Amino acid sequence: MTTREKLAALRGLMTEKGFAAYIIPPTDPHQSEYIPDHWKTREWFSGFTGSAGTVVVTHDFAGLWTDSRYFIQAENELNDSGIELVKLKIPHTPEYIDWLANHLKDGDLLGIDGKVFSQGLVTLLKEKLTRKGIRINCAYDLPGMIWQDRPQISIKPVFEHDVKYAGKSRQDKIALVRGEMEKSGADYHLITPLDELAWLLNLRGSDVDYNPVFIGYAVLSHSETLLFTDGRKLSADLSHKLQSEGIQLKDYHEIASYLTTLPQDSSILLSSPKVSHHIYLAIPPHCRKIDSVGIPTLLKSCKDEHEIRNIQNALIKDGVALVRFFRWLEENLGRMEISEYSLDEKLTSFRDEQQGYIGNSFGTIAGYKDHGAIIHYSATPETAYTLGKEGLLLLDSGGQYVDGTTDITRTICLGKPTKEEIFDYTLVLKGLIQLSLAIFPEGTRGYHLDVLARSPLWNKGRNYGHGTGHGVGYFLNVHEGPQGITPNAAVSQPLQPGMVQSNEPGFYREGKYGIRLENLIMVAPHSETEYGRFLQFETLTLFPFEMQLIDPDMLTDDEKGWLNRYHRKVFERLSPRLSKEDNQWLLEKIKEVK
Amino acid sequence: MTTREKLAALRGLMTEKGFAAYIIPPTDPHQSEYIPDHWKTREWFSGFTGSAGTVVVTHDFAGLWTDSRYFIQAENELNDSGIELVKLKIPHTPEYIDWLANHLKDGDLLGIDGKVFSQGLVTLLKEKLTRKGIRINCAYDLPGMIWQDRPQISIKPVFEHDVKYAGKSRQDKIALVRGEMEKSGADYHLITPLDELAWLLNLRGSDVDYNPVFIGYAVLSHSETLLFTDGRKLSADLSHKLQSEGIQLKDYHEIASYLTTLPQDSSILLSSPKVSHHIYLAIPPHCRKIDSVGIPTLLKSCKDEHEIRNIQNALIKDGVALVRFFRWLEENLGRMEISEYSLDEKLTSFRDEQQGYIGNSFGTIAGYKDHGAIIHYSATPETAYTLGKEGLLLLDSGGQYVDGTTDITRTICLGKPTKEEIFDYTLVLKGLIQLSLAIFPEGTRGYHLDVLARSPLWNKGRNYGHGTGHGVGYFLNVHEGPQGITPNAAVSQPLQPGMVQSNEPGFYREGKYGIRLENLIMVAPHSETEYGRFLQFETLTLFPFEMQLIDPDMLTDDEKGWLNRYHRKVFERLSPRLSKEDNQWLLEKIKEVK
Repeated sequence: MTTREKLAALRGLMTEKGFAAYIIPPTDPHQSEYIPDHWKTREWFSGFTGSAGTVVVTHDFAGLWTDSRYFIQAENELNDSGIELVKLKIPHTPEYIDWLANHLKDGDLLGIDGKVFSQGLVTLLKEKLTRKGIRINCAYDLPGMIWQDRPQISIKPVFEHDVKYAGKSRQDKIALVRGEMEKSGADYHLITPLDELAWLLNLRGSDVDYNPVFIGYAVLSHSETLLFTDGRKLSADLSHKLQSEGIQLKDYHEIASYLTTLPQDSSILLSSPKVSHHIYLAIPPHCRKIDSVGIPTLLKSCKDEHEIRNIQNALIKDGVALVRFFRWLEENLGRMEISEYSLDEKLTSFRDEQQGYIGNSFGTIAGYKDHGAIIHYSATPETAYTLGKEGLLLLDSGGQYVDGTTDITRTICLGKPTKEEIFDYTLVLKGLIQLSLAIFPEGTRGYHLDVLARSPLWNKGRNYGHGTGHGVGYFLNVHEGPQGITPNAAVSQPLQPGMVQSNEPGFYREGKYGIRLENLIMVAPHSETEYGRFLQFETLTLFPFEMQLIDPDMLTDDEKGWLNRYHRKVFERLSPRLSKEDNQWLLEKIKEVK
Repeated sequence: MTTREKLAALRGLMTEKGFAAYIIPPTDPHQSEYIPDHWKTREWFSGFTGSAGTVVVTHDFAGLWTDSRYFIQAENELNDSGIELVKLKIPHTPEYIDWLANHLKDGDLLGIDGKVFSQGLVTLLKEKLTRKGIRINCAYDLPGMIWQDRPQISIKPVFEHDVKYAGKSRQDKIALVRGEMEKSGADYHLITPLDELAWLLNLRGSDVDYNPVFIGYAVLSHSETLLFTDGRKLSADLSHKLQSEGIQLKDYHEIASYLTTLPQDSSILLSSPKVSHHIYLAIPPHCRKIDSVGIPTLLKSCKDEHEIRNIQNALIKDGVALVRFFRWLEENLGRMEISEYSLDEKLTSFRDEQQGYIGNSFGTIAGYKDHGAIIHYSATPETAYTLGKEGLLLLDSGGQYVDGTTDITRTICLGKPTKEEIFDYTLVLKGLIQLSLAIFPEGTRGYHLDVLARSPLWNKGRNYGHGTGHGVGYFLNVHEGPQGITPNAAVSQPLQPGMVQSNEPGFYREGKYGIRLENLIMVAPHSETEYGRFLQFETLTLFPFEMQLIDPDMLTDDEKGWLNRYHRKVFERLSPRLSKEDNQWLLEKIKEVK
């Protein structure tokens, strides 16, 4: 079926239902970032493969709303599909709602599938559209009625995250969540995000790429724990073990009918941006809803001592793999053909040598020369450049280990760097160091600190169009909330000890090169004075920066001090696990900057 | 009448009306920061003279909720009054609402005076209390029924702010506001804040201390301008002039009845935190309310070229007065008795010598030794310390000139400074310089930059408990929005060229000394690159810092460069208007830092 045929079929169904417009969002019932194949409806329908982008279809127009990261890709993928690219002014905002408000008429009916739309988004839609007299029908998955070869919901096996790695048992975690429920006055907690579910029950799965999660829901009360998932995903042993620990197993599709049975005068905590409208509606009106960030989200963001020790170990393994990989690259460049694409395979093979490696934590971004300036570039065999002995290579990659999730970006120079490249690289490095050096009181949010990473660039009329840092899970999603380091004040979670996030300023010259430097940093206590408790960052990632691209004269003494200390730490932590040759190579990379 | 007698009388009236509780807020119908005497109800009732603080009375309790700036003062002033001090956990928040929600019973009736409560606050009260079954009656000013010698509403004369100083005529300003009303789809604009009114009509008054505003309202439509104020405040000439310019004059009390006549299908722009509940209710339900920051607030915050030139001139005059004052202090300290209190009189007399000086822009804060650590300290003849040849003196003061409003803080050393004093002073200075040096893209908010002023202190486990910068009016309020430089993300106005605000980091050692350094800084264009338009700050204030308190070894080269350039600018701007002796004195104060 071509996209034009799908459009015609969808419009036929829209006529049948009396819909003036229909929205196909890029989401699943759990509002995941990475979507299980079964719910890749927008991708199947439009042919556009980017992660962000919503299709809106009326009887005389069809558009894909996406942000600047995807403009080029969308133009290619939508070519002659009958769907037009609509460029978002502000990324991650539902600007199509305003378009609908302006283009639909009083009395028109808009169709959406309430199973994949979040309650938060439905509320917003209603706010903006009902005042214009536009009605909304949430009952139909129209693309699903056309989609012949739609993949089934995954029944890939669920496995345990050994408590040896997880640190806390699921009983301990459930008790912690119940403690917080008590404080919020919640009788029940509905857990819809897949990463919350995986963390809570020390279970993992393979239902989506890169994120080791599985499809399911949980509901906690003060006496019961219910897991809603397809029984075929659980081995007999695991089912038995969970049940013996008091966890009741229910089918995935039973969640809505279960919720309808919640008793009179009870209260349930849920996060409306993370609950589908369909599930939300199942909760009886007599049950008070406490709308809040899910309790596991905050709990899992603060890693405990056990997790921290494991993460530190995972980052040693990752560093070892990176030393071997970059040494291999340096020694083989020019001797064999190496492309952006084959690079990824080789890097993965080095990570694969490490104990406890499960897979990559996201799709590697290997951007050589001008490809480096495409922020979410993903090399394919067709587009991949072959590397030569010149130019910059930006490499952003990460691994899933049973004892931690990693995410690192380095930019290296394959030949002799230009002055401009050195200047730009050093500015980005200064930003990374300034944020690394931050000391800040309790209560500080990411939006207070973001400027530290940007100032060196701003001072030279430069900037980057992405956030500085995202939270990182523990053998879980490489992007996790609730904290972050971005100018966006909506990310308002104060930074707390044990929170792990990235520190990744960048600078991109379109058509020339991209520079991004990324470490994982963890919030740690610094001091307690009569003026409050102060926090700092501890850098977790262990791999040197590119000396060839650093102009020492642009660094302050404090910045040089940090860089030299960091490089010494990299060597101390990695060298015991490296061969003599690898150590020799590493020593060359970390010469003191004066 | 004692406070206990007032409490008894109020409770009698509460019983009569069936009120379980009554709230007396520190506000007037315009939600002013400085309150006209007529509305100083909370002060009259409780005896507490601080600016922030709300009294809540029930039949068995009376409390004053205020923030940490006022704890000591409130304890003294409330002593044995029957009203207890309740300490706010978070300043400027209505925590008493939660108290009421917990202490009143289902069915209880709460009384407030809707004439002085803002619509925004009434909405919040209703949200939090009606769900508990508590009803609210907004009809009675109970303290007003007891207050025998209550001052009348001021009828002090209104005067024109000459267009020579104002820059734009009132016709131009009205046209600008109408342009913005058009964009917002507003047929009417209700103007309730006194500073908006004064700015819009190029009128000034003396109805409150320090802020040259007058009591009134305005309503703009696309064809009409109505001014609601007591006619006795306007001279015959001014009345005639305003009317000849098409401004309709109405009595102050006619505002509500006028609003009831707004036509069907019309829309009115207003700011619900700035409109009293009483006035808000007068607007007919058929009139659509557009709730937004008042248009004059944003327009007046961006000073135009004419205003900027005048402000620069006002700051030269202020600098000249300060040079003469600080020289006088240095030469007379030890020769005559000088106290914190007499200091203020002397400083005012030097400002008074300057052309166009109208008065002070706020109550001078002169804090010697440990008094400097009391952030809102106000010396009285009884409390004032006599200055000696030792210790730190913090002096925060400002003038109202017809061509600008000033606000400056300097901290000087009257003897030989300690190492600790030098260390702390230099940290505060570093913060001020770091913010002064900031370059930032359009769209940046104050909460993004606040950290720059704090980092040097944070790095040493220090902090200060106030914002870094407030907007400053133009011969208007010394505190004006909508922008600011504070960690508070609710102050979300992007910084725009022409915005004037303070840059005032500080550090306070309780029982020892306070350090605060304050310049006015203006947002100005910096550069335009392919990565956006960048802005910077231009420092407007002209007075040197205290060399004795600066440790040059703690300053970076950039910081020394800024300080030396700043001091050269101070000399260049001030010296033409200074005597030979003053210039000699000033040159001693600005020796190059190496």
